[in-house]
Amino acid sequence: MFVDGEGRSGFQAKSFAMRLMHIGYQIYVMGETITPAIRQGDIYIAISGSGKTKNTVNNTLAAKKLGATIIAVTSKQDSDLAKIADETILVPGKVKNDKTTTSIQLLSSLFDQSVHIVLDCLCLMLSKRDNISEEIANKNHINIE
Amino acid sequence: MFVDGEGRSGFQAKSFAMRLMHIGYQIYVMGETITPAIRQGDIYIAISGSGKTKNTVNNTLAAKKLGATIIAVTSKQDSDLAKIADETILVPGKVKNDKTTTSIQLLSSLFDQSVHIVLDCLCLMLSKRDNISEEIANKNHINIE
Amino acid sequence: MFVDGEGRSGFQAKSFAMRLMHIGYQIYVMGETITPAIRQGDIYIAISGSGKTKNTVNNTLAAKKLGATIIAVTSKQDSDLAKIADETILVPGKVKNDKTTTSIQLLSSLFDQSVHIVLDCLCLMLSKRDNISEEIANKNHINIE
Amino acid sequence: MFVDGEGRSGFQAKSFAMRLMHIGYQIYVMGETITPAIRQGDIYIAISGSGKTKNTVNNTLAAKKLGATIIAVTSKQDSDLAKIADETILVPGKVKNDKTTTSIQLLSSLFDQSVHIVLDCLCLMLSKRDNISEEIANKNHINIE
Repeated sequence: MFVDGEGRSGFQAKSFAMRLMHIGYQIYVMGETITPAIRQGDIYIAISGSGKTKNTVNNTLAAKKLGATIIAVTSKQDSDLAKIADETILVPGKVKNDKTTTSIQLLSSLFDQSVHIVLDCLCLMLSKRDNISEEIANKNHINIE
Repeated sequence: MFVDGEGRSGFQAKSFAMRLMHIGYQIYVMGETITPAIRQGDIYIAISGSGKTKNTVNNTLAAKKLGATIIAVTSKQDSDLAKIADETILVPGKVKNDKTTTSIQLLSSLFDQSVHIVLDCLCLMLSKRDNISEEIANKNHINIE
Repeated sequence: MFVDGEGRSGFQAKSFAMRLMHIGYQIYVMGETITPAIRQGDIYIAISGSGKTKNTVNNTLAAKKLGATIIAVTSKQDSDLAKIADETILVPGKVKNDKTTTSIQLLSSLFDQSVHIVLDCLCLMLSKRDNISEEIANKNHINIE
Repeated sequence: MFVDGEGRSGFQAKSFAMRLMHIGYQIYVMGETITPAIRQGDIYIAISGSGKTKNTVNNTLAAKKLGATIIAVTSKQDSDLAKIADETILVPGKVKNDKTTTSIQLLSSLFDQSVHIVLDCLCLMLSKRDNISEEIANKNHINIE
């Protein structure tokens, strides 16, 4: 399983990946040191509010060609990223250069916050389903920091 | 101005720093490539839910000795980090190994989400005060990604 | 001034950027938190042994369109990256999937080492030219680590 | 297996970890997203030219207490880091604030370059021993970049 995202979406992607690791998933972050080759059957989760972030879209397209199943996390159902995706988690929330949604907050802040909570909910649901206790998660958490 | 944080607190620290850059602040992230020396009068913002994260506490103590003004972002008023700080932004929310607060979510998820929203609110207030429009923020945002 | 590179080239790019900061240059790393928008007249240094790394080439092309002066660091004079560049620092050394150069070392190890030494030589020459002493460089070096 | 290092030593640590991944080792980088808890019997490789980098020394001490075998990569045989270590790879080369070695290069440049080449030699030796061909290493290398 891989996560990908640029800028503030990237921080949410990393935050999600870290928690998935705590609850027992093997997940890699695009751009980090030990991220291996993508192979047929891998899951590739790409986050972009606009669904147009160029490197994210290009990477995701390449992952699809390599046989990965694509999950897009975006606020735009008709974006390039959503079109590439096998499954889309549609997270409403105003993004940068948004033509259809407004917010009192600048740029993609509203989307970032919504994604954070949606993905943490997903982690909660997975941890419940898999019976991952606080104790187990804590044992996976880095113990030097 | 510097931000510091480990793990998921670190991602919130980076996310905050990125938005501060968009609205016109000069800010550096501890551990990134071009982060310079800390000098007398600098502001050092350290995020740790428990207020006990060892590297964060050690770095912050060192920053204080170098003459920085310390702002702690933590859920624990009586933690080591809060004690070092000149000012504390107290963000309630259950953290890892929490003895006093509970949450259905694992580890520090609730704190992470709360910090995200609190710091984005702070960015909103600063951008209002400084008259930073969407257009100005967009011009500072990286234009290759 | 910006540096860009993926994988092990990226680590050399960051290492170069860090030393340039120590000797007094303002430089940003593509992909890090506080990297701002690229503007007309900026210098964009892109490292890729093969000169074909897709994200690096795409980013560099975008930087060129934004008016940046491009410096390519590559082992391949006739690569896409070198063709985009205004100036090329040609660093011989076998790279991944190399058709023309050989090495007993795997992948791009020889190129990585050569780039490291070439860019550190460049830092040495710049520090001599600008009269940057050990003491000055040390003062810019992060003082908490 | 874990690697640790700050600043330019950190970039060499990451570069080493990436190549070890290519040749088939499971290795984690301290400070990256998916780095798990350290357990009894793990190998912890810490790089610091001076052997005094505070966070590196503190982390390494904590890893030792958790039961990890410590390998120090340093230029100083009598440093704190070397004293903690089970094994030391002594890499000569002038470092920051060096009292005993000189170089025309600033700060720890000479050490950084020496470490780079020593660790790449180690990768070469391991890949020879384990019969890791260019083709195998290439298959582990990230295939989207």
